[in-house]
Amino acid sequence: MVDILHRVGVIGSKEAVYAAITSPEQLAAWWTDDTKGDGGEGGVLKFQFVPGGFDMKVLEAKPAEHVLWEVIEGPDEWIGTHVRWDLHTEDDFTIVMFSHEGWREQVPFMNHCSTKWATYLMSMKQLVETGTGAPSPNDVQISNWH
Amino acid sequence: MVDILHRVGVIGSKEAVYAAITSPEQLAAWWTDDTKGDGGEGGVLKFQFVPGGFDMKVLEAKPAEHVLWEVIEGPDEWIGTHVRWDLHTEDDFTIVMFSHEGWREQVPFMNHCSTKWATYLMSMKQLVETGTGAPSPNDVQISNWH
Repeated sequence: MVDILHRVGVIGSKEAVYAAITSPEQLAAWWTDDTKGDGGEGGVLKFQFVPGGFDMKVLEAKPAEHVLWEVIEGPDEWIGTHVRWDLHTEDDFTIVMFSHEGWREQVPFMNHCSTKWATYLMSMKQLVETGTGAPSPNDVQISNWH
Repeated sequence: MVDILHRVGVIGSKEAVYAAITSPEQLAAWWTDDTKGDGGEGGVLKFQFVPGGFDMKVLEAKPAEHVLWEVIEGPDEWIGTHVRWDLHTEDDFTIVMFSHEGWREQVPFMNHCSTKWATYLMSMKQLVETGTGAPSPNDVQISNWH
């Protein structure tokens, strides 16, 4: 099992970052504009991109602290993997410790998703700090895989 | 052992990307402006940032195809790790398969470096595509760790 890891610091409160990763309206403002569902514990979030989508079961959602998703629909490589968000405060930042865990093997798609997650996390940071993110389909293009 | 993985596609030739990752002048234009040394096989590259630096021994350098660095000086967590660059062509892109391999454990600094590598790889892509990258100290700030 292998994991994608990231860390960003957002100038904003833990509550603001928690809202950015649990509210469908705010997820739509930094990840993909076609986001539906319920980001609370026990809910399912549906993220649709141009080539396909991901459904996430919200296994854990502890306000201003922690969110854990399980991928229940999407590309084969993603099914059964977990997306983990842990928030804490350092200096003036809310630190987001992010991991997309439990990939079965290091396929090239994992490299792609790692870089792509980084650019989306920067989009989330921008959203909280400035009010404007860069969600799909207006996201940063990193390669021929978009 | 755990690895950081990324993949970016650069609109440009493999030769241009190879030059961006082997020429000290070009490395200085996307990673850190204080870059010295020799990027050819057997050489040592010295990258200096504001808080510290990394020295890389160039273990392998196959023009327009592949570069492998070993970290011989720098933060404890980096010493002995390897930075691998593999280039190939897809569509109009030179695809860069990147890994920073052999971390002893998943420390928070690894999360930070993963996100930071992504933003630097985007800086390298920009440099090749537009002639202007965003090297340290004018790099994209991602958190309180810079």
